[in-house]
Amino acid sequence: MKDGRAPNTTPPRLGEIGLGNYEPYLMNRVMGRYNASIRAEMAKLGLTTPKMRVLAVLSVMDGLLISQLAVHAITEQSTLSRALDAMQADGLVRREADPDDSRATRVFLSNTGRATFEVLWPHMAETYGRMFRGIDEDERHAFLATLKKVHTNIRKHDF
Amino acid sequence: MKDGRAPNTTPPRLGEIGLGNYEPYLMNRVMGRYNASIRAEMAKLGLTTPKMRVLAVLSVMDGLLISQLAVHAITEQSTLSRALDAMQADGLVRREADPDDSRATRVFLSNTGRATFEVLWPHMAETYGRMFRGIDEDERHAFLATLKKVHTNIRKHDF
Repeated sequence: MKDGRAPNTTPPRLGEIGLGNYEPYLMNRVMGRYNASIRAEMAKLGLTTPKMRVLAVLSVMDGLLISQLAVHAITEQSTLSRALDAMQADGLVRREADPDDSRATRVFLSNTGRATFEVLWPHMAETYGRMFRGIDEDERHAFLATLKKVHTNIRKHDF
Repeated sequence: MKDGRAPNTTPPRLGEIGLGNYEPYLMNRVMGRYNASIRAEMAKLGLTTPKMRVLAVLSVMDGLLISQLAVHAITEQSTLSRALDAMQADGLVRREADPDDSRATRVFLSNTGRATFEVLWPHMAETYGRMFRGIDEDERHAFLATLKKVHTNIRKHDF
C-alpha cells in the first residue's frame, strides 16, 4: 500500500479520526441541511425526496431508462417504481416503451413536471449558493475535482 | 455580492451547471454507495440507518443529550425516539435523566452497543478507505478543509 502499511493493519478507530474530521459524517450533515432547506417547498408541491430527485434528473436528462434513472436518483428500483406511479397519476411524468427494446421503459418529464421543478429549483439554488459562500473559485474547483475522484472510487456504475 | 451580480439575478439552471458538476448530487451519489456498502452488515446486526448512526456517534461522544444526538445522527427527534426505544429493548443503549436537569435525557452506549459498532466499523472503514484511494495527503486535507467550510455555511446548530 501507498503509505507502507500492511493491507491487514487494523483500521483507525472512529474516535481517533474524530467525527468532525470524518468526511462521510460531514457530507451527511451537509446533505441533511440541504434536504431540510427544501422540505417545506417540497411538501407544498406534494413531493417526496425520490420524486424531487426524479424531477431534477429528468430536467437535465429527459427520457432515461428506469434503470439509469434509479442510479441517478439514488433510489432503489422498487421505491422508484412507486414514485413513478404516483407521479404519472399526478401528470408529472409519462413512461414509454423504448422503441429499440420493448421490455425497457423510458421516463419523460411532462410540461407540468418541468414547471413543478422550476418552482422548486430556486430554493435548491439558494441553498446551493449558501453552501459555497466565501469559498473562492480555485478552492471550489479543487473541491469539485476531489469529490469527482471520490465518486469514481466508490461508484458501481460507469456514469 | 462578491462576484458583482445583483442579489436577485436568476440562479443558473441545473442544466447549465450539469448534474455531474453539482456537488449536492455527487455527495448524494457518494453517500448512497457508502450506505449501500454497509447495508448487508447492518441487516445482519438488525440495524437501520438511524440506529447505526446512534451507535457511531455515541461510540465517540457517549452520554449526549437526545437533542444533541438528533443533530449528530442527522435524524429527526420522533424517528430517533423510536430507534432509541428499540435499541434500549435490544440492550444497545440506556437512557438516563441528566443529573443537572431532570427533564433532559442523556443516552449511553452499553457494552453490547459498543461491541455491535465494533463489528460494523471495519466495513465502514473499508469503504472510507476506498473513497480516498489514490488521493494524496495534501489534496485530502484541502478537501476536508473545504467540506468543513461548506458545513459551517449551512449548519443550523453551533456544532
